[in-house]
Amino acid sequence: MDLKDYIRDIPNFPKEGILFKDITPLWQNKVSFKESIQLLKERYKNQHIDLIIAAESRGFIVGAALANALEIGFIPVRKPGKLPYKTISASYELEYGTDTLTMHEDAISEKQNILIIDDLLATGGTAKAMAKMVEQLKGIVVEIAFIVELTFLNGRNKINDYNVFSLIQY
Amino acid sequence: MDLKDYIRDIPNFPKEGILFKDITPLWQNKVSFKESIQLLKERYKNQHIDLIIAAESRGFIVGAALANALEIGFIPVRKPGKLPYKTISASYELEYGTDTLTMHEDAISEKQNILIIDDLLATGGTAKAMAKMVEQLKGIVVEIAFIVELTFLNGRNKINDYNVFSLIQY
Repeated sequence: MDLKDYIRDIPNFPKEGILFKDITPLWQNKVSFKESIQLLKERYKNQHIDLIIAAESRGFIVGAALANALEIGFIPVRKPGKLPYKTISASYELEYGTDTLTMHEDAISEKQNILIIDDLLATGGTAKAMAKMVEQLKGIVVEIAFIVELTFLNGRNKINDYNVFSLIQY
Repeated sequence: MDLKDYIRDIPNFPKEGILFKDITPLWQNKVSFKESIQLLKERYKNQHIDLIIAAESRGFIVGAALANALEIGFIPVRKPGKLPYKTISASYELEYGTDTLTMHEDAISEKQNILIIDDLLATGGTAKAMAKMVEQLKGIVVEIAFIVELTFLNGRNKINDYNVFSLIQY
């Protein structure tokens, strides 16, 4: 099956001039949802991954489904003020200004193998912030994986210290 | 195993006087994460569920993992302005004021069997808003399921038109 058949183009979202890649049809269809997780599971099942981390909100969908499929733990990365326990944080650049992500400080132990997951690779800022937090807790970033990669935004350049993988490229 | 062993009490979060039940340790531990999804999978695997719907952000973690385990589709419910395609919406009451959730208008087809999932049943407002949207799209709410139920908040009263299930009660 071609997973691209389940990605929907939405013109002018979230603002004029942007062609948004809507992944929700891929998750809505039981065959494409299963296939996307299965492909990732096959790739990572023998790589001794200890934990998956993913950022809210859409990252949770693919990250939690894959973590359960691999029978490993899942760590949520959230906006500031959302996680209840003690946190670490990392900032990343937006078009104008910066944004910050947080993770519980006891989420990862030293030398654990971490897979970072997100639904979409655009500029790579979110992924890089997650990788920085993993390393701050002395975890090992095994790979950073995405459902969809927007290659024309060159997000890989920002995370070229790491292995990067995506299921679908535009 | 007792899943309660993986729920952490956080005093005074998100504000003074609230004892917050932190579910992240349950997801971080591979055994408790797997067990929680397995228990829900056993309950629903023969109930002909077509789709799971869940609200951002924490609801996505349990909803997507369970949908993948059941090999069915997953529908995200989000805050206004977050979903890119045409949406329907439902509002619910907060302590002060109201809040609104949205769902894609093509997320559910008539007579599909829907399982509503969330991590926590508190006052039941979010769950009721989700149920209203399912019915607006002529879907059938088979059940509303939670990882944790705060029974002292009587959230079941607000959703007593539906079957309600929770894995852990306080």
